[in-house]
Amino acid sequence: MVQARARIADGAVRTPLLAAPWAPGELHLKAESLQPMGAFKIRGALNAVRRLRPEARARGVITHSSGNHGQAVAWAARAAGVEAVVVMPDAAAEVKANATRELGADVIFVPGARREAVAETVRAERGMVLIPPYDHPDVIAGQGTVALEILDELDSVDTVLVPIGGGGLISGIGVAVKWASPGTRVIGVEPESAADARDSLAAGHRIEWKTEDTCRTIADGTRTPVVGEVTFPLIQATVDEIVTVSEDEILAAVAVLARRSRLVTEPSGALSVAAHLAEPGRFGRTVAILSGGNIDPALLARALALPS
Amino acid sequence: MVQARARIADGAVRTPLLAAPWAPGELHLKAESLQPMGAFKIRGALNAVRRLRPEARARGVITHSSGNHGQAVAWAARAAGVEAVVVMPDAAAEVKANATRELGADVIFVPGARREAVAETVRAERGMVLIPPYDHPDVIAGQGTVALEILDELDSVDTVLVPIGGGGLISGIGVAVKWASPGTRVIGVEPESAADARDSLAAGHRIEWKTEDTCRTIADGTRTPVVGEVTFPLIQATVDEIVTVSEDEILAAVAVLARRSRLVTEPSGALSVAAHLAEPGRFGRTVAILSGGNIDPALLARALALPS
Repeated sequence: MVQARARIADGAVRTPLLAAPWAPGELHLKAESLQPMGAFKIRGALNAVRRLRPEARARGVITHSSGNHGQAVAWAARAAGVEAVVVMPDAAAEVKANATRELGADVIFVPGARREAVAETVRAERGMVLIPPYDHPDVIAGQGTVALEILDELDSVDTVLVPIGGGGLISGIGVAVKWASPGTRVIGVEPESAADARDSLAAGHRIEWKTEDTCRTIADGTRTPVVGEVTFPLIQATVDEIVTVSEDEILAAVAVLARRSRLVTEPSGALSVAAHLAEPGRFGRTVAILSGGNIDPALLARALALPS
Repeated sequence: MVQARARIADGAVRTPLLAAPWAPGELHLKAESLQPMGAFKIRGALNAVRRLRPEARARGVITHSSGNHGQAVAWAARAAGVEAVVVMPDAAAEVKANATRELGADVIFVPGARREAVAETVRAERGMVLIPPYDHPDVIAGQGTVALEILDELDSVDTVLVPIGGGGLISGIGVAVKWASPGTRVIGVEPESAADARDSLAAGHRIEWKTEDTCRTIADGTRTPVVGEVTFPLIQATVDEIVTVSEDEILAAVAVLARRSRLVTEPSGALSVAAHLAEPGRFGRTVAILSGGNIDPALLARALALPS
């Protein structure tokens, strides 16, 4: 992971760790929303692309994603002069597809349920390298670099609060924290309506939620119905607890971050702050990971209209 | 100024310098909106408070401000264990007065036109030290530290775009830039409806606009009707040009910064980006100073509703 950090240093931003004096207790914000493409995903994508051997670089990379990971892979591939294909579900917003194309990637639309299968077919046909959104050691190592930056800057962190989708971010952070600062708690945060990782951790095996349930949350980055095969054992080994927050708490956190810390976050990106505000003082000296900032402007406007 | 930088290092944030790949040409954003209290003002206030001699510290500091400077002085004074008084115009928002009181300062309300006179009276009576919002060498030196950070991080900057109110920020930046990187242009930005600094620079002497004119702009940080006595000669010596932007251009810049760079800025804070977007490519490798982020949430929501 220390190697990953050096590998991505000139591409990913060393994001600021900002105090949030308006919050109860002691809260610091790691603003991954300020990365290129607006999310932590650039770390894993860059690390994976830069780890490619020359013969793999020549054949290009492929991924499947409707969200931030697709754009991150496109960005990292273009920066490295590597061809990229992004398989997107039909339902993905045209604006995201266009943004991905502007980064030089080919976009293939398929029915949502088939995106992994189609990505596998194209990969096999064209001999490309798959960079999955979370379930890959290089991606996980890249995401974990965010924890190294935090522990460099702040002494004796009691708790790191991390949003969970497929588990790439929290497993990378978990490994880094338990290696560099074993006394620090790593706590995952999910929406109440997409708490598959909490259930999986409690059961001791991966539990899948129905997509029609997880799609109810406004935190679209956490709708993944089940954590990864690679990430789950890392979560079991390194995550102390998983807590959940309500939809209202998530939107209120988006609002307070814009009003008081002047940061635009997407709902998934504000989950960690929602958890801190729900149980003031419980987590001690806390770092909340703001995982991303790609929010629909109309939804941000709705959050700003909430009473403060 | 190098000393000022060391003096404020543990209080002001070294704000990130972020690429803005969505903008034409090459644009970098210096996000002073992420400072404590949401504005660059913390730099000058901290520098001035920390320069106080022990006997002055014991008597406390006073300032007059309806905006970001008052809160910055209150914050810096509290951090140093120094008493602070902030004289505010009657018309100041209650929310700003409360925020200033929460920082431990005494707030005195007076009719707007009398605030400087009242501050002077209280200062003389109580033997306090006045920390003016811009017209003071320690304040100017503090604001100039932002330029040292930029020139540390980025080689061969062609242009720095800086909003102008009383001129404290741009004169500090001007001095720093012409010392450290004489080939870099320093260009000021004002709203069309508060272009007193442009007129002053053209005339060769300070020209005052009427407050009923300057108060028309949404960029409330630039409503100062005339630049300072101390700042004006520094502006003459170091500023290459002053450009103006329209109200629509300012609000559009607030919107694009929230949408594409995930940064909340106030209208005054977005002036520099408005200028860059108004004349794409003219300024070369450009750094835009985002001077602050304290925007009324309803105004931000209005900006987000603009067509993108």
